[in-house]
Amino acid sequence: MHLTWNRKDLISLDLLSKEEIESVFTVARAFKASLGNHKAKTTLLDGRSVVNLFLEPSTRTRLAFEVAAKRLGADSVTVSAAASSLTKGETLRDTARNMEALQADILILRHPASGAPNYLSKVVDIPVVNAGDGSHAHPTQALLDAFTLLERFESLDGLNVTILGDILFSRVARSNILCLRKLGATVTVAGPSTLVPNDFASMGVRVCHDLRSALEAADAVMLLRIQHERQTSTHFPSIGEYTSMFGLNQERAAWLKPDAVIMHPGPINRGVEIDSELADSNRSVILQQVTNGIVVRMAVLLLCHSFHTGEAIQLPQLNS
Amino acid sequence: MHLTWNRKDLISLDLLSKEEIESVFTVARAFKASLGNHKAKTTLLDGRSVVNLFLEPSTRTRLAFEVAAKRLGADSVTVSAAASSLTKGETLRDTARNMEALQADILILRHPASGAPNYLSKVVDIPVVNAGDGSHAHPTQALLDAFTLLERFESLDGLNVTILGDILFSRVARSNILCLRKLGATVTVAGPSTLVPNDFASMGVRVCHDLRSALEAADAVMLLRIQHERQTSTHFPSIGEYTSMFGLNQERAAWLKPDAVIMHPGPINRGVEIDSELADSNRSVILQQVTNGIVVRMAVLLLCHSFHTGEAIQLPQLNS
Amino acid sequence: MHLTWNRKDLISLDLLSKEEIESVFTVARAFKASLGNHKAKTTLLDGRSVVNLFLEPSTRTRLAFEVAAKRLGADSVTVSAAASSLTKGETLRDTARNMEALQADILILRHPASGAPNYLSKVVDIPVVNAGDGSHAHPTQALLDAFTLLERFESLDGLNVTILGDILFSRVARSNILCLRKLGATVTVAGPSTLVPNDFASMGVRVCHDLRSALEAADAVMLLRIQHERQTSTHFPSIGEYTSMFGLNQERAAWLKPDAVIMHPGPINRGVEIDSELADSNRSVILQQVTNGIVVRMAVLLLCHSFHTGEAIQLPQLNS
Repeated sequence: MHLTWNRKDLISLDLLSKEEIESVFTVARAFKASLGNHKAKTTLLDGRSVVNLFLEPSTRTRLAFEVAAKRLGADSVTVSAAASSLTKGETLRDTARNMEALQADILILRHPASGAPNYLSKVVDIPVVNAGDGSHAHPTQALLDAFTLLERFESLDGLNVTILGDILFSRVARSNILCLRKLGATVTVAGPSTLVPNDFASMGVRVCHDLRSALEAADAVMLLRIQHERQTSTHFPSIGEYTSMFGLNQERAAWLKPDAVIMHPGPINRGVEIDSELADSNRSVILQQVTNGIVVRMAVLLLCHSFHTGEAIQLPQLNS
Repeated sequence: MHLTWNRKDLISLDLLSKEEIESVFTVARAFKASLGNHKAKTTLLDGRSVVNLFLEPSTRTRLAFEVAAKRLGADSVTVSAAASSLTKGETLRDTARNMEALQADILILRHPASGAPNYLSKVVDIPVVNAGDGSHAHPTQALLDAFTLLERFESLDGLNVTILGDILFSRVARSNILCLRKLGATVTVAGPSTLVPNDFASMGVRVCHDLRSALEAADAVMLLRIQHERQTSTHFPSIGEYTSMFGLNQERAAWLKPDAVIMHPGPINRGVEIDSELADSNRSVILQQVTNGIVVRMAVLLLCHSFHTGEAIQLPQLNS
Repeated sequence: MHLTWNRKDLISLDLLSKEEIESVFTVARAFKASLGNHKAKTTLLDGRSVVNLFLEPSTRTRLAFEVAAKRLGADSVTVSAAASSLTKGETLRDTARNMEALQADILILRHPASGAPNYLSKVVDIPVVNAGDGSHAHPTQALLDAFTLLERFESLDGLNVTILGDILFSRVARSNILCLRKLGATVTVAGPSTLVPNDFASMGVRVCHDLRSALEAADAVMLLRIQHERQTSTHFPSIGEYTSMFGLNQERAAWLKPDAVIMHPGPINRGVEIDSELADSNRSVILQQVTNGIVVRMAVLLLCHSFHTGEAIQLPQLNS
């Protein structure tokens, strides 16, 4: 087995080579094989300390990082916005350097400002993993999405993936476009023209305002949550109108290819961007995405840490 | 030793047989014997993950479940209302299924709505333990209360227990009535008529509005906290009036039998439902209840998990 | 090696003998030697449970205590003001005794009221460690500050230390004055006369309102955070005015001796009490203070616990 990984930090997909992305998958696959076996808890990061600095609300991503850290044998500490010294006027840089002084081995950052993780990666020595920054990037989400697709499809090369919804404000969309294109997929972005500007064509994707055409071609459709918090009221008239025009319902799902899968990063708004029964149908891989979020993050933590310390990676009973 | 336990979930006392209740006590007793011995930490749930989903405030119950999980060797993660995706419009079912997808092995739920744990137990495969739902049930509290009584009295058969206070809105009262009656105790409920409706007679208890008579007969009196948050203003005129009419003070405690014990699920309001010195007297078993909450919950977690996985239970140095 | 330690609690520096302070340093030094070695995790408090009851906001101190507990092998649980039953009207004494009933082995308390830790130490049997109470004391901060100075200077005997800023409301200042004086240092307190009353002379320190004179003599200057929350508006006209009169900037730092160090308990207000470049200069030992906070607190937890249980202390590979 050969692993390629050349960085202490994971900030954005645009820096990763295809080989690095595939190394994440190789490691994640090894962890997935023993996920259900509670006796196979690893000690790869035994005694290490992972700090989750989460300055925006999150359950899923935060818990997935916590579980990933613990399954690697590391301790995990979470600091939220309310509890942090940032409320006492401390700068983000000082908060991060204090975590480092407190012997953190890896810093995971979720932050409302695009670019915050990149900035921190320059001011601390330890690895920084971006857990979502503003509308910029959410690299571990894109990696787990691609990993989930690879459980259904042999390769992403030539696969058609449609991302539907609020593309403009979505860090999930941006990271997925970068990741999917590096792996050879053809990406279509669809949704209301106010949320799917034609500029996105410059990222190498097809911009499509005709929902039917966007769905008919798709091997996979990634729905995005309508994120009220990142929108001004002028981008679309109402939630109801979004649902009636772009919500994925049974009628529209019938336009998909028979084996196309439905994805969503969560939390889902049932009856808004997705019909409730579709979310629970066997086309949906939404819960598999959640589970894969654990093993992909285990892989990212291990790769960043090993690059940083120069330690060789010992995978447990790697079967591939 | 023979243990009887036929369920993956603990939702309410009404489903449990007397044998199942006694199995909880048998296991809890084994844990209690080694509680003070820090070197006897068990590995019974090693590598397992327990999620505390607490959608109402709680310190005592939440910490007791956390300590119980850790003493079994499991990891424990707590998600509170403020931190959960429920604030982003996710349904409770989706939140729970996401926890399951994140590889939780047991889900502990506190919820303001009666019936929420029962509902979740149908939509996830993993065990669900009710940590208090609305005014419906608080089964682990009732089990630890009975366990505490059994440390003072040889049997509950024929024992007289008076529950005093806000019976109408109390999940603790409902679960205790069910549990105590199954174990053979005679239960009296007492308090202001607005909070102790005569309907309760249908649960097989004596409804008594004469405090002196209710106390004179009692081997144990369970006080309930006056829960402002579950009451409308019309149930009694004022806290002061409640205290003057039904607060347990020295004078009224003198009506009790000499060896009667005083119980309270906490947190106590000193000077409201209980006189401050009485709370600290050697009649009070309030802090023993708290300690027993650990071992009873260890037993419940272990029994539900073992039933679910089919694994045999190996108790550490069982002395009974 | 001989260790002197005669108490289960750490409440304030005034009770500690010089020998006890030095015992903290001896133990902390042993831990520091293996701090970077993740494989050298200790099991000194294996299976023990440390409760952090933090009734004021804190990141740095709370995390340092959590990390210290974990590095000793103990479990660590944190209870904050919002999550605690104190909001349900429970008394502090009852909250603490409930923690004890939940099998806590050590209670760490941060509280807005001066004297709260002392009070709790009388009502629970387990060790109580003061993590900051009102404007009274912050003993672990003073210990880690002195420990940090001893990494730069052979002895504190005769060393000149200037504490600059809001002395009046600062528990850090009070504890440092007591600690530094016991170790033989000469302490000067400086700042606006409203925040540095002449009464402090009774603590055996020099009160100095001339900043230049206070800095020229200093081997170390300890800056204090301007704590808006503890001040009424009448103590000084504005933050800007404080900075212009007493902020440590490059020009004023030039008055210091060439090898004088700059300290700050954090979180720092860059551009207020300290110039931003100075905070990052090699004169600053601010981040070393943070790291030393771990090992000093490990030492305190271990000494208090060992005194309480009567167990002998086994230090890992003690080199001194």
